[in-house]
Amino acid sequence: MIGTPILPEIRELIEQRNFSALQRLFDDWLPVDLAELISDLPENEQAILFRLLTKEAATETFEYLDFDAQQNLLNALTQKDVTHILNSMSADDRTALLEELPGPVAQELIKLLSFKEFKIAKTLLAYAEDSVGRLMSPDFLSVKKDWEIGKVLEYIRTHGHESETLNVIYAVDDHGKLVGEMLARDLLLSPLDKKVEEIIDEDKLITLTATQDQKDALEAFKRYDRVALPVVDSNGYLIGVVTVDDMLDVAEEEETEDIQKFGGIEALDEPYIDVPLLQLVRNRAVWLVVLFLGEMLTASAMAYFEDELAKAIVLATFIPLIISSGGNSGSQAATLIIRSLALGEITVRDWWAVMKREILSGLMLGSLLGLIGVFRVVFWATLLGHYTVMWLLLGITVGLSLLGIVLWGTLAGSMLPLLLKRLGIDPATSSAPFVATLVDVTGIVIYFSFASLLLKGVLL
Amino acid sequence: MIGTPILPEIRELIEQRNFSALQRLFDDWLPVDLAELISDLPENEQAILFRLLTKEAATETFEYLDFDAQQNLLNALTQKDVTHILNSMSADDRTALLEELPGPVAQELIKLLSFKEFKIAKTLLAYAEDSVGRLMSPDFLSVKKDWEIGKVLEYIRTHGHESETLNVIYAVDDHGKLVGEMLARDLLLSPLDKKVEEIIDEDKLITLTATQDQKDALEAFKRYDRVALPVVDSNGYLIGVVTVDDMLDVAEEEETEDIQKFGGIEALDEPYIDVPLLQLVRNRAVWLVVLFLGEMLTASAMAYFEDELAKAIVLATFIPLIISSGGNSGSQAATLIIRSLALGEITVRDWWAVMKREILSGLMLGSLLGLIGVFRVVFWATLLGHYTVMWLLLGITVGLSLLGIVLWGTLAGSMLPLLLKRLGIDPATSSAPFVATLVDVTGIVIYFSFASLLLKGVLL
Repeated sequence: MIGTPILPEIRELIEQRNFSALQRLFDDWLPVDLAELISDLPENEQAILFRLLTKEAATETFEYLDFDAQQNLLNALTQKDVTHILNSMSADDRTALLEELPGPVAQELIKLLSFKEFKIAKTLLAYAEDSVGRLMSPDFLSVKKDWEIGKVLEYIRTHGHESETLNVIYAVDDHGKLVGEMLARDLLLSPLDKKVEEIIDEDKLITLTATQDQKDALEAFKRYDRVALPVVDSNGYLIGVVTVDDMLDVAEEEETEDIQKFGGIEALDEPYIDVPLLQLVRNRAVWLVVLFLGEMLTASAMAYFEDELAKAIVLATFIPLIISSGGNSGSQAATLIIRSLALGEITVRDWWAVMKREILSGLMLGSLLGLIGVFRVVFWATLLGHYTVMWLLLGITVGLSLLGIVLWGTLAGSMLPLLLKRLGIDPATSSAPFVATLVDVTGIVIYFSFASLLLKGVLL
Repeated sequence: MIGTPILPEIRELIEQRNFSALQRLFDDWLPVDLAELISDLPENEQAILFRLLTKEAATETFEYLDFDAQQNLLNALTQKDVTHILNSMSADDRTALLEELPGPVAQELIKLLSFKEFKIAKTLLAYAEDSVGRLMSPDFLSVKKDWEIGKVLEYIRTHGHESETLNVIYAVDDHGKLVGEMLARDLLLSPLDKKVEEIIDEDKLITLTATQDQKDALEAFKRYDRVALPVVDSNGYLIGVVTVDDMLDVAEEEETEDIQKFGGIEALDEPYIDVPLLQLVRNRAVWLVVLFLGEMLTASAMAYFEDELAKAIVLATFIPLIISSGGNSGSQAATLIIRSLALGEITVRDWWAVMKREILSGLMLGSLLGLIGVFRVVFWATLLGHYTVMWLLLGITVGLSLLGIVLWGTLAGSMLPLLLKRLGIDPATSSAPFVATLVDVTGIVIYFSFASLLLKGVLL
């Protein structure tokens, strides 16, 4: 078991320039751990350590390096080393690197590729970002469907070294069209004289297309529990393969996007700490301004009730408490419904079932906060020694407003994502701040309506 | 490619009791699609269709059914069928089913298991929920490290049918201790006379333990790009294997938990629509009440400024606008930092780098909202025809307060997750509503401080 690299020991060996000891040590390390170590080193030491690796380990380690370290090494290594790495790294990782690099640099590097790899790189880069094409590897193994398993095994032994995965082998017909897949399991368990076509099941083949969204691929992997899925062109010819290890990364990216949206930010393309400051501010400003403009309505609503306010300043003191409770319960409801929609646990058609649940939840939560609210107002007044019927009525106003606002927040928070989904808009757009803003404005109206009703002639 | 089941056609065949046609149709379907169809049917029809499946398809389909359908079928099928399914389904799926069922029902079902499966089920159920033990399958294949590949292949062909995965084969020493793993790739590419010990690399073995959190397993799968990882006991003996397909589900569950926490809810154990209403309310009430109690401080803060309020009611009208802007910018910052921490993009040690970014972001965002705020107040007053210097000063008060509150919200939202992490508390606890509440209280103080300063002698 390899743990996190122990830097002090490594540091010492580097200071001593004891490269043979380092080399021996690195022999037992996994590429991902080597990559983490090298990424953590100062730039001028990265190349020194990287050169200690064997050719094979170097390519694999390079694939795991973070982008900054990759860029640094591309500058620091000899053209010969760079050429070797670029030609031997897997096509999908190379695509990811080339798309990150500035255009001219990428163009220079592509020139170092062999004719075969050059064609592959150009093809993959032509697919849209976030499309399946950017994840796929053209290094797969396909066999004819009339071969016997024995022949397939022999073929793999001689031609399989380049293949991205050997967990799945693809079967094609005489025209090269994909007709089925065999798992390593099938190959290892079948008698040697069985034919490929006896093993594959053409009807049960699941395929992707290169232009599909990576999200779709993730769904397919989740649904069908595969370790690899084939990518076909519009004529059904096999053009690449996507492996499940890339899917955990896609899942992570999707999650980040969802979470950022829900926090009320335009999703960032890069890690938080790497995004240029101005872009970071821009991605936040969009929603912040929209919400601010929406929230301006609270000022208008309050201006409308200025007379009531003037008569009873004490009313104003409870406004933040009341409207924030609506916002909080609305955020909760929106969170639950957005996530439930995303997981397919509910659909828009379930709106009535959801509404019933949320009305009941809202009533219970609202009553709870309402009671605490009444208690707060009455207890406070009693404590300060100026308890009167007016305070009781104020307490009831606050309590009923809380009930109404929490109920309304819960309903708005739960129905808004369903409505957005129905209109074809991403339900995650109804972020916590968005729902809170919506509920704030109506909350003020609800509060002052109860106040007018209950406190007329007493306070107002 | 199999799409979503076309219900109208199926419906017709069911109405016609045309079971042979259904059976032929189902032959071409994948278990996951069959499971979706059956789960969508009314309870009384589920068993009818399920009985049409071959024994093998039945078990696989059963594993994919949702819990309600599984429970229904366990009641509707004969004891013989139930016995067959329970004994042949994979151990990890069976564990998941048994842990969901009410205790007495699970006990009854466990009695139907063969002695071997009974022991397995008991062992797996003994591991804690959310531990690796609950995900692992004891059906793996291990070979001696001094065997030749040819012998290994022969062994697999005779003993491999029960194994959960054949993408990885484990190598053990003479005492049965795990010493290495071979990928299907290694088996398929190596010469037949090569020995297992020549292929495996003992130093590079990654292992899990059964008591580890499933989150750790997910991290290991992401980091090392594996399709399966071995689980060992404290003495290094192999006791099970976890496969990557389960990891996409773990990732989904973890994401749900994170999102719910961030929405200010205690994470739910079950899908939203299945959670009993009272539990749903309880999970929401906890945080809602905590936040409500915190938000009560706003009322106290405002009571403190009651004199100022009485003199200038107009001040009150901008309170929701101002404090909500702090809450929104705080939610944004918290979202970014919580996610960035979770992805390991930043650590607590980076607090100063984060703070610098957030101070600058906060200043820019605050200036933007502040300017809009000044414009709103002054424009409004001019529009209504009662523009005076007082309104200009009020506008400046609102603008400066917005700048201060947005800056403060941004700082609080970004530093709080880091502080919580430092204290060993899950940073996701600093949910959007939590940050908003924190900022609301201080926002009022900031606003009235600016007002006292700028409007003294004019309005106050």
